[in-house]
Amino acid sequence: MGNTHYGRQSFRLEKPAVIAGWASVAGKKESEGPLAKYFDISQKDSYFGEKTWEQAESKMQQLALDTLVQKTGISKNDIDVAFSGDLLNQCIGSSFPLKNTGVPHLGLYGACSTMAEGLLMASMAIGGGFADKAVAMTSSHFASSERQYRFPLGYGGQRTPTAQWTVTGAGAALVTADGNGPKIDKCTIGTVVDLGILDANNMGAAMAPAALSTIRQHFEDFSNSPNDYDLIVTGDLGQLGKDILLTMAQKEGLEIGGKLTDCGTFVFDTLKQDVHSGGSGCGCSAITLCGYLLSKLKSGKLKSILFCGTGALLSPTSSQQGLPIPGVCHAVSIQGGK
Amino acid sequence: MGNTHYGRQSFRLEKPAVIAGWASVAGKKESEGPLAKYFDISQKDSYFGEKTWEQAESKMQQLALDTLVQKTGISKNDIDVAFSGDLLNQCIGSSFPLKNTGVPHLGLYGACSTMAEGLLMASMAIGGGFADKAVAMTSSHFASSERQYRFPLGYGGQRTPTAQWTVTGAGAALVTADGNGPKIDKCTIGTVVDLGILDANNMGAAMAPAALSTIRQHFEDFSNSPNDYDLIVTGDLGQLGKDILLTMAQKEGLEIGGKLTDCGTFVFDTLKQDVHSGGSGCGCSAITLCGYLLSKLKSGKLKSILFCGTGALLSPTSSQQGLPIPGVCHAVSIQGGK
Repeated sequence: MGNTHYGRQSFRLEKPAVIAGWASVAGKKESEGPLAKYFDISQKDSYFGEKTWEQAESKMQQLALDTLVQKTGISKNDIDVAFSGDLLNQCIGSSFPLKNTGVPHLGLYGACSTMAEGLLMASMAIGGGFADKAVAMTSSHFASSERQYRFPLGYGGQRTPTAQWTVTGAGAALVTADGNGPKIDKCTIGTVVDLGILDANNMGAAMAPAALSTIRQHFEDFSNSPNDYDLIVTGDLGQLGKDILLTMAQKEGLEIGGKLTDCGTFVFDTLKQDVHSGGSGCGCSAITLCGYLLSKLKSGKLKSILFCGTGALLSPTSSQQGLPIPGVCHAVSIQGGK
Repeated sequence: MGNTHYGRQSFRLEKPAVIAGWASVAGKKESEGPLAKYFDISQKDSYFGEKTWEQAESKMQQLALDTLVQKTGISKNDIDVAFSGDLLNQCIGSSFPLKNTGVPHLGLYGACSTMAEGLLMASMAIGGGFADKAVAMTSSHFASSERQYRFPLGYGGQRTPTAQWTVTGAGAALVTADGNGPKIDKCTIGTVVDLGILDANNMGAAMAPAALSTIRQHFEDFSNSPNDYDLIVTGDLGQLGKDILLTMAQKEGLEIGGKLTDCGTFVFDTLKQDVHSGGSGCGCSAITLCGYLLSKLKSGKLKSILFCGTGALLSPTSSQQGLPIPGVCHAVSIQGGK
């Protein structure tokens, strides 16, 4: 067996897994942001033609999968397994679009780290010889998240300066054993880190320690450094969380300042679009990856990135019970290539 | 690479993964049922010493993991990855017990199929060389489920005859590359099946078609039959769902009647314990497996089983919006052995 795991958290694929295709679906606000031209589908109707926002979210994942299949020229019948999850209670955004499609489904819950978690699991499935074609897929929707996690939208609640804006969007990536495209060569699984952050409107602060822990571990396990990557992309700490991560990293002597970008600060023009600390939600890193980043990795504009999905593992119930917010971060190393 | 996938949904491990240890934690009602003597921990206090039922559920998973570590003589620092999930919104029953333990965590959502999904993913991680020691873990709690999915317990709502009783319990299994114990040799990943069942109090009916689909596919992919197993164990269709599965299977000429048992009809004495159609919840198949089944597989009383975790992929929101209940079933073939 040629795959090797490094330390406890990391593994290297003997033969890197190929990201053979990707698709992104974005809502109105996202399509007015700096990444607009990279999305496959931009939709002004927040309902995506459905009756409810939750059903709109399912529809987005369905559109992402349909577009992925179309762009890559495969059929849904060719997919051996789809790893997918989302933020909705019981992940209905992910299971409903797959019903009666015949696509084998393994459901994930990694909060906003889901795109990275899905890629990591798809790498295991492909690298281990358990599948030839695996899909990693996720979504989030501003309106379904707001009413589930915070307030009914009609209430018109004021947002705190530390709050992030949940991205309306879905991304899907096809991971294969052979073929052309950017390649996943190394992964680091995150641990659950809790430094006692209690403010559910400051999730960047809750996730930053987990991001630091995984990034540090990745470099330790593979004896490499930020210099090995063009970009270290967290998603989604937002502006405040990114600043906290930079400060914490600097204190430990880990110099990532020149390389770090965050999907939450990237997907929106945070000032012009009035999104306070930036974007969030599973869809945030999903559309940044499946819109912008993978196209730049394919074109050679980016040679390699460390894609670090970050998730805040809270629920409204845990917050109401006064519990702190644990975070997790999974890192996937992607090498550019046609 | 010696692992092989069969058809789209199934794979065989070149070297079977070992279930080197297991642990189960059960609540009061479960500890009064027919499997009582097989549980490692039986607890009369439904709060497990915590302040809320949700925190009790986290505590159960923590106890299951602590007991697993103790029984197998490993340390938490030896665990390369824990695959875990539960029914609580945002899976807080699974993430909270792992916080600050340093255990790498990949979160799952498979509803009541989670124990099987976790074993399947642990098999991929071990079989692919990505980990040496993987844990599959899940839980459910009657009281946290009732108030999240149905009614506040104080309301005293009447249960329908088709309703199932959510098991209060947690199970954890250690999957390793080497060592002694029952072995996982083959797995079949489920697809999301929806035949339009709308009644959220009849989840057995919603899951039975998914169970049939996966069991049939397993036999087709591996060209084997019910004769290759001592037991086909679904979990958790309940009495009604089991009857529906048997009828559907018979119509298709699939003879599983003599082999089929269901964790939901097994974990409780359904008549004496007044649980209507039987047990349910992620904990149902988890404590049946990590209590009774694995000990019988180890002692040689059972030579092989097909463990088929079934999950109903609904949420209260999807039901309130009038949507049907899709089901999924993942099958794991386990061979007995010391």
